[in-house]
Amino acid sequence: MSELRKDPILGRWVIISKERGKRPIDFEIIAASSKSEYCPFCPGNEESTPPEIYQISGENHGWDLRVIPNKFPVLHVEGNLDRKGEGIYDLLNGIGAHEVIIETNDHDVQMENYNQPHLENIIKTYRSRILDLKNDQRLKYAIVFKNHGADAGASLEHAHSQLVALPIVPQIISEELAGSKKYFDFKERCIFCDIIDQELEQQKRIVLDSEHFIAIEPYAARFPFETWILPKKHESNFEMLENNRIPNLANILLNTLKKLKIALNNASYNLVIHSAPFSDEFMSYYHWHIEIIPKISQVAGFEWGTGFYINPTSPEEAAEFLQNITF
Amino acid sequence: MSELRKDPILGRWVIISKERGKRPIDFEIIAASSKSEYCPFCPGNEESTPPEIYQISGENHGWDLRVIPNKFPVLHVEGNLDRKGEGIYDLLNGIGAHEVIIETNDHDVQMENYNQPHLENIIKTYRSRILDLKNDQRLKYAIVFKNHGADAGASLEHAHSQLVALPIVPQIISEELAGSKKYFDFKERCIFCDIIDQELEQQKRIVLDSEHFIAIEPYAARFPFETWILPKKHESNFEMLENNRIPNLANILLNTLKKLKIALNNASYNLVIHSAPFSDEFMSYYHWHIEIIPKISQVAGFEWGTGFYINPTSPEEAAEFLQNITF
Repeated sequence: MSELRKDPILGRWVIISKERGKRPIDFEIIAASSKSEYCPFCPGNEESTPPEIYQISGENHGWDLRVIPNKFPVLHVEGNLDRKGEGIYDLLNGIGAHEVIIETNDHDVQMENYNQPHLENIIKTYRSRILDLKNDQRLKYAIVFKNHGADAGASLEHAHSQLVALPIVPQIISEELAGSKKYFDFKERCIFCDIIDQELEQQKRIVLDSEHFIAIEPYAARFPFETWILPKKHESNFEMLENNRIPNLANILLNTLKKLKIALNNASYNLVIHSAPFSDEFMSYYHWHIEIIPKISQVAGFEWGTGFYINPTSPEEAAEFLQNITF
Repeated sequence: MSELRKDPILGRWVIISKERGKRPIDFEIIAASSKSEYCPFCPGNEESTPPEIYQISGENHGWDLRVIPNKFPVLHVEGNLDRKGEGIYDLLNGIGAHEVIIETNDHDVQMENYNQPHLENIIKTYRSRILDLKNDQRLKYAIVFKNHGADAGASLEHAHSQLVALPIVPQIISEELAGSKKYFDFKERCIFCDIIDQELEQQKRIVLDSEHFIAIEPYAARFPFETWILPKKHESNFEMLENNRIPNLANILLNTLKKLKIALNNASYNLVIHSAPFSDEFMSYYHWHIEIIPKISQVAGFEWGTGFYINPTSPEEAAEFLQNITF
């Protein structure tokens, strides 16, 4: 059983996962095994993954998309939460869910090359899994993310996303909630809505603009070509997304990923959906969005030590560069 | 001139450095040039660095250690701070200092192999540069850090540390200050002092224990073999360190780095000094310390998206492993 431990100074939660790699020697084994030829996510190898949670069927009795529990989960569904102290320290049992969305049956296709209806199905699958996990009263948050490429931490090449559902709200989200609430208390407006308005007016950091969504380089981007996709309509939770806006989201995501791929020569990237914690109510001050972080610069000591980033490419230059890419 | 931009949601400052790499193509050039044979930090090549700020002399008219301004600084000393708004956004001119401490005249020696008096001189140099920069009323914080190895972001092999002095307090430090103040307000005790007491009592996460300093694996370590060195005496600012404790600090730092090198097969690491902001007063709730983060695991989407880390090695196992390493 893994543990959730709280940093006593920062209040930041960490998963101490005792079932994954442990000793220094194990790290090398993990790295080496990821280069194996056998792909557990390919059709025909279904028995090498844990039993399926969800599926979208394809042609000839096959599948188009599968959701499975992670074989090496960082959190487990079984058990009680059990808050405990250890002197000045706090911990929780590692309760939660860790699922893998195998996005396609084709080993050689990556997200930017899906056809739009297929990406719509993936988006619907994210939504559906979040809505299901929301029923578990122990859980407070679900994060959907995707690591593309070895530099972004992907251990398997076959395109997949991950979902981790947690009994706590992760620190960056807590901070985003606190920051946007402070703004709302002062202005009675959503800060993300104000950002969208200002970006549309200034036209300096827009990558793509569509009916329901906008893709921008954020003003204080931490990384070169960091890109956010936001719904234009105020909406706090990703899982509130209605069907009629999904084609537009799939379309802007496809085109953004295509532009980034060409601009950055197929660089690795991380994609993360930022959404409000589980709630049945609409939150007036938070606004869900997708953050895409290409892995082209090395994060060094300065950044780790301070949470203070140096970005060698201004978001204005990156936006202009991406705008000019056609395909 | 670079800009300091504030993330409007999180309040996190980012340096947008327009003078460094810019376009995607530039990132490749930077990576390639770092493999060059010519070393600007070696004796005889002093003319390829900006003029020296500080020096400790060695034998035969040579130098043992040099401090120079970074040739590609992320911040500049000249100019006014100039706080400005741009709609809902905030920015500052990129005022500050960015210095490089060339730790040794020997291209082939790394920190863990210095003799102790040499490392004492390096520690005294950090202190001396901070004390000097503290006189600049525009600056609020100085961070000293070291990237060792390519995986940690070091662009030159020749051993060096860096110092960045800032007109703002970086976010992680602000959060540490806020968290430790909350604890102090409640308990009237320093949380770091309480951590040291509990670690000494539990004896589960101690790597090295000496007269004035302790090296531990923190309870909620984000990374495998993350190691902290703390002064046992309460002290908020690194630059308050008196001469009589410097040999002990140099000794525990040397031995910690030697153990990590053996345990992790010479893995890259980042070393960062966390200290309170510039002040002439002693701060009762903050406690300076050194954080060493070996780069053996890849940080992936989950961590970036959430500030929520998965650590596959428990700090207790790491501490035991390091304790058993002898040299």
